[in-house]
Amino acid sequence: MKFLIKSALLHILVLLLVYNLSNCVNGHDDSVTRQLQRPGPQYYPSRGEPWPKPQLRNLYNDSIMIIRPPIFRFKVLRYTCDMVEDALKRYYSIILKTVSHSAPIVNLANAKHNKSWKSDPGFKGYLDVLQVDLMAPCESMPHESMDEAYEIKIGTSGFEGTGLLTASSNWGILRGLETFVQLLYPADDFSSIQIKTTLILDYPRFSYRSVLLDTSRHFLSMKILKQNLDLMAFNKYNVFHWHIVDDQSFPYQSRKFPQLSDKGAYQPYTHVYTQQNIAEIIEYARLRGIRVVAEFDTPGHTQAWGPAIPGLLTPCYNKEGQPDGTFGPIDPTNEKNFEFIHSFFEEVVSVFPDKYLHLGGDEVYYDCWKSSPLIAAFMAQQNMTDYAEVEQYYMQRLVNIVQSYPKNSSYIVWQETIDNGVQVKKDAIVHVWKNVNVPQEMSHVTSLGYKTLFSSCWYLNKISYGIDWTTYYDCDPQNFNGTNAQKRLVLGGGPAMWTEYVDSANIIARLWPRASLPAERLWSDANVRNKSDAARRLEEHRCRLLKRGYQLQPPNGPGFCGVEWD
Amino acid sequence: MKFLIKSALLHILVLLLVYNLSNCVNGHDDSVTRQLQRPGPQYYPSRGEPWPKPQLRNLYNDSIMIIRPPIFRFKVLRYTCDMVEDALKRYYSIILKTVSHSAPIVNLANAKHNKSWKSDPGFKGYLDVLQVDLMAPCESMPHESMDEAYEIKIGTSGFEGTGLLTASSNWGILRGLETFVQLLYPADDFSSIQIKTTLILDYPRFSYRSVLLDTSRHFLSMKILKQNLDLMAFNKYNVFHWHIVDDQSFPYQSRKFPQLSDKGAYQPYTHVYTQQNIAEIIEYARLRGIRVVAEFDTPGHTQAWGPAIPGLLTPCYNKEGQPDGTFGPIDPTNEKNFEFIHSFFEEVVSVFPDKYLHLGGDEVYYDCWKSSPLIAAFMAQQNMTDYAEVEQYYMQRLVNIVQSYPKNSSYIVWQETIDNGVQVKKDAIVHVWKNVNVPQEMSHVTSLGYKTLFSSCWYLNKISYGIDWTTYYDCDPQNFNGTNAQKRLVLGGGPAMWTEYVDSANIIARLWPRASLPAERLWSDANVRNKSDAARRLEEHRCRLLKRGYQLQPPNGPGFCGVEWD
Repeated sequence: MKFLIKSALLHILVLLLVYNLSNCVNGHDDSVTRQLQRPGPQYYPSRGEPWPKPQLRNLYNDSIMIIRPPIFRFKVLRYTCDMVEDALKRYYSIILKTVSHSAPIVNLANAKHNKSWKSDPGFKGYLDVLQVDLMAPCESMPHESMDEAYEIKIGTSGFEGTGLLTASSNWGILRGLETFVQLLYPADDFSSIQIKTTLILDYPRFSYRSVLLDTSRHFLSMKILKQNLDLMAFNKYNVFHWHIVDDQSFPYQSRKFPQLSDKGAYQPYTHVYTQQNIAEIIEYARLRGIRVVAEFDTPGHTQAWGPAIPGLLTPCYNKEGQPDGTFGPIDPTNEKNFEFIHSFFEEVVSVFPDKYLHLGGDEVYYDCWKSSPLIAAFMAQQNMTDYAEVEQYYMQRLVNIVQSYPKNSSYIVWQETIDNGVQVKKDAIVHVWKNVNVPQEMSHVTSLGYKTLFSSCWYLNKISYGIDWTTYYDCDPQNFNGTNAQKRLVLGGGPAMWTEYVDSANIIARLWPRASLPAERLWSDANVRNKSDAARRLEEHRCRLLKRGYQLQPPNGPGFCGVEWD
Repeated sequence: MKFLIKSALLHILVLLLVYNLSNCVNGHDDSVTRQLQRPGPQYYPSRGEPWPKPQLRNLYNDSIMIIRPPIFRFKVLRYTCDMVEDALKRYYSIILKTVSHSAPIVNLANAKHNKSWKSDPGFKGYLDVLQVDLMAPCESMPHESMDEAYEIKIGTSGFEGTGLLTASSNWGILRGLETFVQLLYPADDFSSIQIKTTLILDYPRFSYRSVLLDTSRHFLSMKILKQNLDLMAFNKYNVFHWHIVDDQSFPYQSRKFPQLSDKGAYQPYTHVYTQQNIAEIIEYARLRGIRVVAEFDTPGHTQAWGPAIPGLLTPCYNKEGQPDGTFGPIDPTNEKNFEFIHSFFEEVVSVFPDKYLHLGGDEVYYDCWKSSPLIAAFMAQQNMTDYAEVEQYYMQRLVNIVQSYPKNSSYIVWQETIDNGVQVKKDAIVHVWKNVNVPQEMSHVTSLGYKTLFSSCWYLNKISYGIDWTTYYDCDPQNFNGTNAQKRLVLGGGPAMWTEYVDSANIIARLWPRASLPAERLWSDANVRNKSDAARRLEEHRCRLLKRGYQLQPPNGPGFCGVEWD
């Protein structure tokens, strides 16, 4: 069997030579104009290349070490904690999966006599221990300024025969473990798992790297939310932006206002997130160094709130001046609504421990307000001439409420809030999402001194035919005219997956590995831009995550993984 | 629990009334222009509506019967056979799944005293038996002119308290059983499974209703091929068009020429279809009334054949008149190639029992032939002036070979073969696939008297954002100018799923339920075109198949199924 697979690999190598596939590797654009196809995959995967690419990586003399999982162990130095121990267990399982899918299984007895790599002049011995050196006590909750830097040394000078992962915080240990397992790859003959001797110094370019999931247009199961958190951790994302409710449905089950999901969820028992569910997601994310930032978007996007809270939404009027039975955004003329908002958001900030809450504030359509004599009277009374002022009034009261809680919450708002002139807190964050005039908007928002997030070109729900990841890869949050101080205000951002056309059946395969592109843009150095290098690493990364049991779509054209998803 | 779910349903009904959602049901085009969203799903699913829509369906007085699976049974009259018995077993399992997902489970003891439906004036009793009346002995293999008609009577005059499925052939019984289980739907309070009293007379509009899968660009696992056959049967497709090999890889493991997959598969052990695998797929399809038509596309699309058969492909020449190491289509100047073709296709027609083999013949690019002095010499010798004549020469020899076998095979060719002037057999079939000048091409091909297949507007690999099924639904194979005789030459056709960007991880969710649209166009009456009706039935159909355990993407905008995929 070993022989057969070896001959298969030899065959691939021969094909590579015969067909001169090296120029095919850069070739998906070529293949459009070139009419003759070549056999074999469009891109051959890289081997042992991490995604996202580390800030600094030195390789030494093409030398390799062999990892023998039954013997291999993690050795914890200095500090540890439950979170670290849990991660060690998870990553050991992943190493075992990597091995078990690299048939034939490493047989230790045979391995000792295996000539193919022991006779390799690059062979530098066994990596039987990875020392895990956490230099400070663990922090409990991931937060906006957590330190995610780490260092990996494999077989480098002074560390012959061993490996070292060092970090100043448990967050760095988590990120470093992910990188470490990504460095492993099967030998040519599948007889062993190799790792190149290497030095890695790594840290994120941006501190806020989020994935937005919308659980309102379609409900997403707990299993899918957790799978997505796994995949986020595998790609070094650190914020789950949970757009939990919207016009279509209200799956958040409130303690204080259970009628919201009773009347607003698609189904009030099966299509809700209970308080227990939410706590479970927050804990699952915490163990992976991921913050959960919840979004309760108001005053627009609130149709599903309406049935539960009479008077909350603005009644729209027909041409005869009568309410027409439909409703618009939250009604800011009804003082009781601010009592509800105060009480409801007080619960929300207690349920979601992160300092930041996303308050939405996007796409407030004025047609309904324009139809309403009550809004007209209110505007006259307040000396308002523009409906943006009505929106501004609502948002100002909302942010005042949220910043009044003892928790010292802060918040994120979509760009319209600022574009419409609302005064927000100094440490509030503005989220740019529109895909028009993006550099101007980024310049504008940062010139006002606001911390800024960027999602404009990463609306991954918008699919198109063919390879689309190059667009996501080219995009950069700091690509606008501004001072260094303005650039530093960009905290990061991330992709959004709105769920009009996806649900639990297809969201994972559609989102991943496309969301790996913004992940690298947000983590790696700004100069990491080589697309043919990225294509080969992405091919490896996708197959690697497929092996771990996740259902990811192929990122490139024709090709295959050693183990296919089934 | 029953009360809670009832109240949930009541709530949905209330929402329907309050928000006047009835005009939202037709409304996905509206929602683009209308800025205010309404809560709830875009389309509410229909209840007990089969897909594809039967040719004739009468409903009687809104009366319903109740099916109690522990008591319900099939009663076979006259003929039966293994294939029918196997289908009864499969469909009984599906009925049980339908019930088990309609919580709470029907409790017979309670059901007898359940007022909610027994007091329903429409209640016409229990459907405890479906008589299955096959009027002739079973046929063994599905074939081009199999009879798929059937009749269903549920509680109609003369059949009170019982149901009857009648067909002249086992193929009709298979189609009718699928329709029968689709007629079942949960009662409002989920306390029972209902069926409307009804008469259905049904038969297909077209006899050839195929789904093409490409297993060359990406390999598809046996499990995925079988899932796709299941879904085809659920949508009354009757031909699996297996585009098994192509430029990128050659997964067909030949008995006579094992080197083809040894050298041409992505991986010669894990990424091949053995003879046993193929027999298993053919048998699995047979039991579902599905033919397997294999495609071995030549003379283009053959790059992966090259490494195994020296001299098969045309060597391409550089400007200096030297072979440049690349290869073009099969070399028709090498007489030995026709010996190989004769021997190889002789095996193929013995492996695939269907009378028809798809011979390809599309996209033969001439650049390589143009570069070759050997081709030039051959053309001079043969008095050829056009490269289409070279292609014609090859195809003519190929079809002559295939029609020379004792099996009396016939074949299908892509449209280029005819466009380039090849003479094919009287009973050969021409497959129109290009999406330009489609009506002209259909007119042209049928005017030559050829039987014709149509796939032009059903290339489902080509995705776009949003709801795309309406395009597939509007399309019609007989939409061209021609005589009735020409129209009758259109045997059908079907969707294609080329696998550049899909593999086992995402093909099912991407293909289904989008492939349900051509299924209805090919089966139902040409006048079945109402898209708002289709949207609601499609919503039900997708949720129904999700319940059976298949991972289908949502076909419309926001919404939910009673049971989500997980």
